Amino acid sequence: MTTPLLIRPAEPGDTDAIWSILEPVIRAGETYALPRDGSREAMLAYWFAPANQVFVALDGGRVLGTYMLKANQQGGGAHVANAGFMTHADAVGRGIARAMGRHAIEGATRQGFLAMQFNFVVASNTRAVALWESLGFSRIARLPEAFRHPSLGLVDALVMHRKLGADDAS
Amino acid sequence: MTTPLLIRPAEPGDTDAIWSILEPVIRAGETYALPRDGSREAMLAYWFAPANQVFVALDGGRVLGTYMLKANQQGGGAHVANAGFMTHADAVGRGIARAMGRHAIEGATRQGFLAMQFNFVVASNTRAVALWESLGFSRIARLPEAFRHPSLGLVDALVMHRKLGADDAS
Repeated sequence: MTTPLLIRPAEPGDTDAIWSILEPVIRAGETYALPRDGSREAMLAYWFAPANQVFVALDGGRVLGTYMLKANQQGGGAHVANAGFMTHADAVGRGIARAMGRHAIEGATRQGFLAMQFNFVVASNTRAVALWESLGFSRIARLPEAFRHPSLGLVDALVMHRKLGADDAS
Repeated sequence: MTTPLLIRPAEPGDTDAIWSILEPVIRAGETYALPRDGSREAMLAYWFAPANQVFVALDGGRVLGTYMLKANQQGGGAHVANAGFMTHADAVGRGIARAMGRHAIEGATRQGFLAMQFNFVVASNTRAVALWESLGFSRIARLPEAFRHPSLGLVDALVMHRKLGADDAS
């Protein structure tokens, strides 16, 4: 990445750009457990669920990534964060997911979350697994044959977890 | 259990009885990651979410248990079932949860689910852990300090998993 990314909360004017990121990821069906034929309306409603904080990453004014942050559970489980990340197909490999991951870790820590958990990282998505491991996440479970990949068939999914601490709020 | 339980889909007339089961479990906050002060309306909406199949277990015409069955994920993850179970406080230890668990396993198998996963079994809920293990579930992850128990403090939660097969559809 040559220019610094700007990461800020999503605004109503970002909706088209966010959908241009979500749609190819959802249609491909290789990394997210979402219906491949999900409508724009339904999938944006999922991404912008009332409990979600949605962010966008911009490079030179163009939205190239989006992520959402929320509590992974309610009630007695609300001190563990969850997040989901998508990068524009044109911008993969430029560090955008990594920058969003760091932003999510910092934001969740500042908000008082004690840990972050990803419930369903498709094991064949090796780029994502490596990224999260490089940001301090551990694989704490392998869900056997939990995901039907469109070309690979049934593959495992991983639960990944990371504690959050004072050092993460910088 | 001396009399056989009847387990059937929930009907509108069951709502008060279901709430009489849910409310003390939610207020206690010891086993479900739900807000202890959640309103009747919000918690029934959670239990009766559009994707959920809700059942009740009756003994002598009285509703003593309820469970919900659904896909654990959408899209490529929709072949794995999830379920949640609650037994009336007056009826714990009478085999109602076990009967509902068997019913859920049979129903999920008949519907074509390939496995069932519980995402968040509070580890201190040893009765539930033992029940699910006796019905063939394995602990596939321990989520560290994932649940804030009202008297025990931070305790682990377990992910439990069971494959479903032809033998389960009886």
